[in-house]
Amino acid sequence: MAIDRIIRVDMSTGAVTEERAPERYALLGGRALTARMLLEETDARIHPLSAEAKLFIAPGLLAGTAATTSGRTSFGFKSPLTGGTKEANAGGQLGHRLARLGIKAIVVSGAARGGWRRLDMDAEGARLSAADDLAGRGNYDLHRELVGEARRTRAAATIGPAGEHRLSAASIAVTDPEGRPTRHAARGGPGAVMGAKGLKAIVVDDSGGARTVPGENADAFKREVVQFSRTVLEDPRVHNTSRYGTAGVVKFVNRENVLSMPTRNHRHGSWERADTISGQLIEELGRERGGKMLPCMAGCIIKCAILYHDAGGGHVTTALEFETLALLGSNLEIGPADAVAELDRLCDDVGLDTIEMGNAIGVAMEAGALAWGDWEGVRRLLDEDVRAGTPLGRIAGNGTASVAAAWGIDRVPVVKGQGLPAWEPRTLKGMGITYGSSPQGADHTAGMVTARGVTPETLAQQSRREQLTMMALDSAGLCQFTNALPADMAAFVRERFGAEMSEERLLAEAREAIETEREFNRRAGFDREDDRLPRWLLEEPLPLPDGPAVFDIDEALIDAVWA
Amino acid sequence: MAIDRIIRVDMSTGAVTEERAPERYALLGGRALTARMLLEETDARIHPLSAEAKLFIAPGLLAGTAATTSGRTSFGFKSPLTGGTKEANAGGQLGHRLARLGIKAIVVSGAARGGWRRLDMDAEGARLSAADDLAGRGNYDLHRELVGEARRTRAAATIGPAGEHRLSAASIAVTDPEGRPTRHAARGGPGAVMGAKGLKAIVVDDSGGARTVPGENADAFKREVVQFSRTVLEDPRVHNTSRYGTAGVVKFVNRENVLSMPTRNHRHGSWERADTISGQLIEELGRERGGKMLPCMAGCIIKCAILYHDAGGGHVTTALEFETLALLGSNLEIGPADAVAELDRLCDDVGLDTIEMGNAIGVAMEAGALAWGDWEGVRRLLDEDVRAGTPLGRIAGNGTASVAAAWGIDRVPVVKGQGLPAWEPRTLKGMGITYGSSPQGADHTAGMVTARGVTPETLAQQSRREQLTMMALDSAGLCQFTNALPADMAAFVRERFGAEMSEERLLAEAREAIETEREFNRRAGFDREDDRLPRWLLEEPLPLPDGPAVFDIDEALIDAVWA
Repeated sequence: MAIDRIIRVDMSTGAVTEERAPERYALLGGRALTARMLLEETDARIHPLSAEAKLFIAPGLLAGTAATTSGRTSFGFKSPLTGGTKEANAGGQLGHRLARLGIKAIVVSGAARGGWRRLDMDAEGARLSAADDLAGRGNYDLHRELVGEARRTRAAATIGPAGEHRLSAASIAVTDPEGRPTRHAARGGPGAVMGAKGLKAIVVDDSGGARTVPGENADAFKREVVQFSRTVLEDPRVHNTSRYGTAGVVKFVNRENVLSMPTRNHRHGSWERADTISGQLIEELGRERGGKMLPCMAGCIIKCAILYHDAGGGHVTTALEFETLALLGSNLEIGPADAVAELDRLCDDVGLDTIEMGNAIGVAMEAGALAWGDWEGVRRLLDEDVRAGTPLGRIAGNGTASVAAAWGIDRVPVVKGQGLPAWEPRTLKGMGITYGSSPQGADHTAGMVTARGVTPETLAQQSRREQLTMMALDSAGLCQFTNALPADMAAFVRERFGAEMSEERLLAEAREAIETEREFNRRAGFDREDDRLPRWLLEEPLPLPDGPAVFDIDEALIDAVWA
Repeated sequence: MAIDRIIRVDMSTGAVTEERAPERYALLGGRALTARMLLEETDARIHPLSAEAKLFIAPGLLAGTAATTSGRTSFGFKSPLTGGTKEANAGGQLGHRLARLGIKAIVVSGAARGGWRRLDMDAEGARLSAADDLAGRGNYDLHRELVGEARRTRAAATIGPAGEHRLSAASIAVTDPEGRPTRHAARGGPGAVMGAKGLKAIVVDDSGGARTVPGENADAFKREVVQFSRTVLEDPRVHNTSRYGTAGVVKFVNRENVLSMPTRNHRHGSWERADTISGQLIEELGRERGGKMLPCMAGCIIKCAILYHDAGGGHVTTALEFETLALLGSNLEIGPADAVAELDRLCDDVGLDTIEMGNAIGVAMEAGALAWGDWEGVRRLLDEDVRAGTPLGRIAGNGTASVAAAWGIDRVPVVKGQGLPAWEPRTLKGMGITYGSSPQGADHTAGMVTARGVTPETLAQQSRREQLTMMALDSAGLCQFTNALPADMAAFVRERFGAEMSEERLLAEAREAIETEREFNRRAGFDREDDRLPRWLLEEPLPLPDGPAVFDIDEALIDAVWA
């Protein structure tokens, strides 16, 4: 079936219109599509929260099919955090539902006046309506009401109070299979853009839509689906992810102490209490409390989502990721896992990027605004200050650089304005190459390079290759934990669309999509200096057992990634 | 006498060293000198509050002489507000005292650890010492203690609490002839830079220094001084300034209503209560309360400083400027003059730029954080929040764009990150050309162009000419209210230094200095788009009697100013 409906929602006038996607978008989906539309349809110099700004929402190319993990949804926009192009994607149930309604993209433009709106989409069409009853409400409450019992056919994308306040660390929450808002398009402030439009919620119901979308070459596509699932399940890396989620790496990363668990605002590479937030501990707790591993969307065979219960067996969160454990845990010297899980739930409820908030609060602690390890203070900051939009909450909710500016601090853990992930560029220098050269800023999902002991040139080549592969994954709508190779994706696209597609062409198109993002950044005023890591990463050694390490990759190598 | 000592203060090590200025600086002073040293000595990409940043302090070329108003002091730095080159200068007693000690420039580098420092300079030398006893204190209290009874030989440059908090709207206060801190190098955050260095105060005592510095061609110089003073005193524009100060234009600007008195966050061009803050009213109040017009430095014959008393005859402020009356008055719908005078004193005491704060608070009022006209709220914000460094105080004290970011507002009255002066670019389009093309951002003192009814091309030519003249004035250390022409300054330089100097060469050197500033901005990452006015000034008409006006000057004309 054709998935070619583009739904345009003009929040200024309330008009909802529809058009067929032009032919040139036929093999673009997810991130590649939102990046292209952002560049083609908006002036890169606009204020990201202005009425002229647009929010592009697109499932991946494989959305709606039986290919495992293929239901991720991309949100593309000019970022209020970085000032550049941005794409954040999330799992959850939204992508498949959009695809089954034949929707290739939603474009939200303008800005509503006088109150909040919701957008409802189903087989009958798309309708915008007043939603002041939803205002001020957290994501858990919202998804319970908007999806709730109808979770087998419905999914929502909502903003919490942080998005309503138009804060740069605000996320968009997507419904998971249990009907909870635990899947977030978080990085770069998509929630702020949605908030600036006055759009509180998008609710998609695919009752009456297509069921599983077949391939153009149906049998061949089915064979690819089966073969790919087998490959995924046989991958030993996947076994670890399926058992512990991403939390499984905490112990390894901290114990090795050559990789680095960010501690005390990235000043140390390991935390003596890391075992209190490890995946192994979380697995044990899960056995006692009825936790388990869940898929974040129907059809996912990896199941990396940790269903996390409190000691009484009550639900706390379903997404206790390594990045969250690191940034809201060790980086703030906060543990044990129960404490971090509660902060994770708060971020999901208020609608915040856990990575950005962990960095922002780390800087606030360094400034003395909060004490290291002050869990209660962080809880209050998230649950009271950010939720209510107090001045302190606005400073923190606007992210790392905002906190640094408020306290006049020059050691700022950001690249292109975006907070550093846990993967440390001083020890994993390939990650630093990705953080610098990616148009997305400091983003570990832009291209993981964990090799050590190889030449800088090799790291730069790996970064390039991984960034292209991630672009392909984000455009197909697949999860990176499948470890899908470009060849796998080329085969999928070939049989799904009956189109010519080779590994080479797929990589060439990924490269073109990266260039589309880079062009937007150039038009927004970025230059090479914006591809640099902050100076302190080059000068302040991270203490490691095999010697102190700084990020010492030649700038020319970063520039060469896309030269 | 030669004024060629460069004093270098390394706050990291505590070392104070001295060198002779190189020959190539011989005819550079004030703004031209600080701009050159900033470009030559610092990497434009450093964080403006880092230890690598430097603060350059230089009196003008004519400092120490009898030329009227020639004692202004320039503070040059990378601005935490604009991210670019910045020079802010102030009157007061500092410049002449530095010159009489033979000091051409002070360069403050590094950053003190563990407590605050003060720098004392006199005929014996320069000494850095601990000054924790000064920490947290306001400028009034500081200048009383540091200068006080010794005001005939001493002057200080200090930061208030805002500078200690490293806020981007923080000023440096310079002592006036009464020993009060009413003269401020305010724009662009020089106080934040001084605060980041850990330097709370500079105290200069010129006892035992030279008295009035003669010209190299002493008699000829003296003749120029006399002739120039006569020209100034005969100028009818000066008569108005001497009588009402800059406050004299309030009534004119508001009544004409073709010029614009910024009202309600720049939404209107006149305020119905403008007569409560007019210079005429202030003059009347002065007669009743013992106010009068004062010089801001010894030897000034214009005397534009309004000594403003309260109803009980107590001192309130000595610098109630038009810009302050506009931005903290009509722009916030606050009056009468007594109310604005109190806010002005608070800004002087806490150490804040009144223009930046008026814009910042205007945006906060638009966001609903304060009510229009809420004087008590503004007083509390300045006196309690900014002074103490609360989260709200930090948001506001970091300026206009900071407040807009905190509340997610896209209508931001700034150019290059700096708040708009009262002179309105939608009606005085030549001012808009200056705001856009000046390397200093929105700064009315960068080049006043008040002509109307001429072609855009003429306005652009005038802007260029005025910007060059202001560069020459800021480098000579002269006050713009002298209306000195390039020819006047060329004659002064010729006789002061016994140097070849023509009007043409003076203008060529001013041009070179502007290019020096532009080069720093380029290296800092600025491009042509940074020379644009915010979009709302192009789109939102200012209601005027002769029709709604937008800023409609062609971008190419702005680019052509320095092409």
